[in-house]
Amino acid sequence: MEKFRVTFYPDNKAIEIEKDRTILSAAVSAGIYINSVCGGDGVCGRCRVRIRKGNAYIPADSILTPQERSENFCLACLATVQSDLEVEIPEQSRLDFTKSGEQVFTETEEVQAPPGEGLGKKFRHMPLARKVYLNLSKPDMEDNISDLERLYRHLDLEPYTGLSNIKQLGDLLRDAEWRVTATLADRDGITELMSIEAGDTTRRNYGVCFDIGTTTISGQLVDLNNSKVLGTKAAYNKQAAFGSDIISRIIHAQKQEGLPELHNIVVDAVNEIIRELVAQHHLDLNDLSVILFVGNTTMIHLLLEIDPSYIRKEPYVPTINFAPVIRASEIGIHIKPRGLLYCLPGVSSYVGADTTAGVLSTGLYRQKELGILIDIGTNGEIALGNDEFLVSAAASAGPAFEGSGVACGMRASSGAIQRVKIDPEKMNVAYETIGGAKPLGICGSGYIDALAEMLQCGIIDKSGKLKTADSRRARDGENGREFILVFKEQSGSGADIVITEADIENIKRAKAAIYSATSVLMRKVELTFKQIARIFIAGGFGTYLDIENAVKIGLLPDIERKKFSFVGNSALSGARQALVSGEALATAKDIARKMTYIELSTEQQYMDEYMAALFFPHTDLDKFPSVRFV
Amino acid sequence: MEKFRVTFYPDNKAIEIEKDRTILSAAVSAGIYINSVCGGDGVCGRCRVRIRKGNAYIPADSILTPQERSENFCLACLATVQSDLEVEIPEQSRLDFTKSGEQVFTETEEVQAPPGEGLGKKFRHMPLARKVYLNLSKPDMEDNISDLERLYRHLDLEPYTGLSNIKQLGDLLRDAEWRVTATLADRDGITELMSIEAGDTTRRNYGVCFDIGTTTISGQLVDLNNSKVLGTKAAYNKQAAFGSDIISRIIHAQKQEGLPELHNIVVDAVNEIIRELVAQHHLDLNDLSVILFVGNTTMIHLLLEIDPSYIRKEPYVPTINFAPVIRASEIGIHIKPRGLLYCLPGVSSYVGADTTAGVLSTGLYRQKELGILIDIGTNGEIALGNDEFLVSAAASAGPAFEGSGVACGMRASSGAIQRVKIDPEKMNVAYETIGGAKPLGICGSGYIDALAEMLQCGIIDKSGKLKTADSRRARDGENGREFILVFKEQSGSGADIVITEADIENIKRAKAAIYSATSVLMRKVELTFKQIARIFIAGGFGTYLDIENAVKIGLLPDIERKKFSFVGNSALSGARQALVSGEALATAKDIARKMTYIELSTEQQYMDEYMAALFFPHTDLDKFPSVRFV
Repeated sequence: MEKFRVTFYPDNKAIEIEKDRTILSAAVSAGIYINSVCGGDGVCGRCRVRIRKGNAYIPADSILTPQERSENFCLACLATVQSDLEVEIPEQSRLDFTKSGEQVFTETEEVQAPPGEGLGKKFRHMPLARKVYLNLSKPDMEDNISDLERLYRHLDLEPYTGLSNIKQLGDLLRDAEWRVTATLADRDGITELMSIEAGDTTRRNYGVCFDIGTTTISGQLVDLNNSKVLGTKAAYNKQAAFGSDIISRIIHAQKQEGLPELHNIVVDAVNEIIRELVAQHHLDLNDLSVILFVGNTTMIHLLLEIDPSYIRKEPYVPTINFAPVIRASEIGIHIKPRGLLYCLPGVSSYVGADTTAGVLSTGLYRQKELGILIDIGTNGEIALGNDEFLVSAAASAGPAFEGSGVACGMRASSGAIQRVKIDPEKMNVAYETIGGAKPLGICGSGYIDALAEMLQCGIIDKSGKLKTADSRRARDGENGREFILVFKEQSGSGADIVITEADIENIKRAKAAIYSATSVLMRKVELTFKQIARIFIAGGFGTYLDIENAVKIGLLPDIERKKFSFVGNSALSGARQALVSGEALATAKDIARKMTYIELSTEQQYMDEYMAALFFPHTDLDKFPSVRFV
Repeated sequence: MEKFRVTFYPDNKAIEIEKDRTILSAAVSAGIYINSVCGGDGVCGRCRVRIRKGNAYIPADSILTPQERSENFCLACLATVQSDLEVEIPEQSRLDFTKSGEQVFTETEEVQAPPGEGLGKKFRHMPLARKVYLNLSKPDMEDNISDLERLYRHLDLEPYTGLSNIKQLGDLLRDAEWRVTATLADRDGITELMSIEAGDTTRRNYGVCFDIGTTTISGQLVDLNNSKVLGTKAAYNKQAAFGSDIISRIIHAQKQEGLPELHNIVVDAVNEIIRELVAQHHLDLNDLSVILFVGNTTMIHLLLEIDPSYIRKEPYVPTINFAPVIRASEIGIHIKPRGLLYCLPGVSSYVGADTTAGVLSTGLYRQKELGILIDIGTNGEIALGNDEFLVSAAASAGPAFEGSGVACGMRASSGAIQRVKIDPEKMNVAYETIGGAKPLGICGSGYIDALAEMLQCGIIDKSGKLKTADSRRARDGENGREFILVFKEQSGSGADIVITEADIENIKRAKAAIYSATSVLMRKVELTFKQIARIFIAGGFGTYLDIENAVKIGLLPDIERKKFSFVGNSALSGARQALVSGEALATAKDIARKMTYIELSTEQQYMDEYMAALFFPHTDLDKFPSVRFV
């Protein structure tokens, strides 16, 4: 296959790529992330780039102006490489990973676990990998069973093991003077002898768990001996270069090389997070025996490089919900060479292992009283039930609450504005950032507060239009009207931190999707919010979420506030529980089997409810009796 | 690493090899097999080669004459490559694989199963791999579980499966219109879904089993649907280039690159036999789902590339007796990509899976009356017992009975002399060959007959010396006195077929080792031959073994002849039983666990018995009351 060299500016990064691949693909290979909200369909126009030199095939589109065409602009997702190229990427076409500084992807400690954590059951400590130190008796003429049988006799069980552990076992046992540590893991009901190490290494027994979200990837390092969390890291999911929602990702996966491309992006991100966690805690990759994943069904398919096409085709069938335990190395993830990879089970094409994990960690499945779990992410999931039944539904909310696709959005990491208070008189803005750092941007809980306060102060109206005449804070920006939350003098990035009318529209759509899905699901099972004893709110909001404000903007139903608990990343909490307890893993399987999925996308009722919810808090104020703005 | 080109003549085959490797290694890499009975210790002198050109490092040895040295002869096992070389291999230094024509290795159908077959229990038909045809219901909005769960629901079980079967499952099911065949296998108690194929392929469900002997490798193709044997092939084990017994192989394995070298030789031979069997029966390698091995413990270690060093060091501990089920591909064996490889379990360092298989197929383990199984091979094994106990021992007999290391020896394949009768008056020799072909050489049963007849006619004396004055048949050959069994005019090879005094000595040592081990084992458990109800004789003897003559030469004990059964390759029979019945596989594991191994090599009694048995039939004629020669 003919290859060409594509050089990107101003980065001055070059990559060799096959003829006919898109410029977007070339950029991803070069480690440069271009905006592409529509996932490469040529309709969002976010991926404009300019050809400085060379020959690209540029198909017709309905986005570029004649002026832009004459200046050699093209859409990176459509234009294909036909010769060596020099390509210039305008700032506005870049994905905003770097918005809060260069370190967002490679650093950013995740914030501490939120208060709601640990509501679920405490499971028995039965980590998926355990280490056993063995002081073996030496063989003699009276007792000369094989080396492996001797080991098994001391273990008092006959696990499965692989050839690589056996090949040099004779030397290993003798060099170690018969003192070795066996690492054992449970693999779908079979005990596996994963490795045999010289001496006593029982102290070094670690695992990692991950939540692969459409927008955010979070990983956590856990000491399997005592279930302690050593560290958590998160990064944006760079698959976003191929679209912000799962449907665009699935469409991209169907393109040539699309599936391996998306797969490699997530594997690279996981490896990077593992590498950082391990380095930070002075561990060795060999100390990590097991890795466990949760994520929505599409993300799990892409992680395992399973074709996800049928997820988006009626009748919406995933290839798997229950993934087999495999070796991490099979998909290129670097932990201990024979280390095992587990995925919690999903429920359906649009309610995945993340929801199963959330139901596990909140204990929703074992309460007598009715409860709801609302996981606010790019793909929002709602689970409803108690110890007798579980139903679930999904809502495509978009990435706004994860700080993506909004002008000054960022993840809930150091420097993110997470609380906002606006003085109605002087319009002074008070805010609090995660870690107390200078503000770099706004995370989900910050947007919720800001919008509620702006409504309260009359800065925006119920449709989300900026009404204020305050010329100091309200202005016409490059992309329409915007409100300056933090002036550049106070900001950590040196630029004003703003909320645009487009941002407000994005958040309105997101909250409407979540609220209406919850509401329609309730109606489907013939329940009302009054009958609900508890609502768990999950999502990557940092340490703090103001429930009052979330009700005010119409994201959450207007019921007694004490019924709400904010549980943070409940998916990651559930993943960790399963990592340190086989009992929790078994419970997760029961939950996934028990939970019924209800498809809303084909419901007219859902569409009607969604449209009605495109107001703050709602077109029907009777639904929000406690909410009254000036 | 510096590499040189070594060219072998008269073959004119060249190979690139690293500096300092032996000429023997170079020859093996070039596919040329040189005699090396001592396994590369420089003591047997069988591997003489002549350097025509170039520079080899030739260490001192006690074998070569000054004359030979001056003619540039050296020992291939000691001399190392120091420059490009041209090496001449004299005919007598070649391993005698080609003695019965070019086809011995690549062809030679194994002879039909001998009469004793099938004495053991008939196990339930539960093949290690089975195929199930599924006509799946199509998903709809009411029934949209994942594709894999749908498959499992129709199977009515939840097997383990690998990622490669899942990745394109969505397309496969739809392209096949939901009609597929699942191949299932039992893997140490877990059911595995090995593959999913479009349409109904249940008819094509095959497996292979192998007996890896020190001298001979035998493989059998079996239709798993009906347990029928489709074909059997055998080949010499070319590891013999590194010594004829297991001790020399283990020593070679400890040399640099020795273990992979021995491993590759057996894997290549297995692949070649599989390829031939599959081609002959117009199958595809994808039709072979499982492969099962038996063999002595050293051979199984080398097959799996497990370091065998500790087998020959006191207290004689193998690394494994019970090998895990692995994928055939893990060791480079080509069957269905995810096809599974099983090994029957062994008992100890010197009583291996072949003995377990023999005990299984003869039913020794389930008889009320006492029985013995004597497996006559290069490593001879004896098992003794009944339904209450099993003991075993081993004897290093050498490869003579397998037609190796003797002047005109050959395996029991087409053209081998398997029966001999000598007219005591005229010294005329009558013989019968396998397949009725022109005689090419002599196999084990032929040697037993020939020696018994020569003793009977007074051609040899009880110590094995040629006595006859018949100048037509007895003569001084290149390697001492020899007896011409078939004149070249009648032979298929165009050369006289002879038995030398050295051959007789070889067979005498082999029979003495087997007899004395059996005898000492009996005494160890305080039993006498009189108490034995049944003796099973196993070995690669072809269709026929004259028990009377085997007793006459002192190979077998002198008890009632009706108590003997000749069972042929009982190891391969047991392997086949396990291949077509999980019940037989489980029984084999029980047998191996139950059987006690008794080490004879450290017994003075065994040495004394062996020395006493170095006569025909024995120095103590009271042990052989029925045997009287003229």
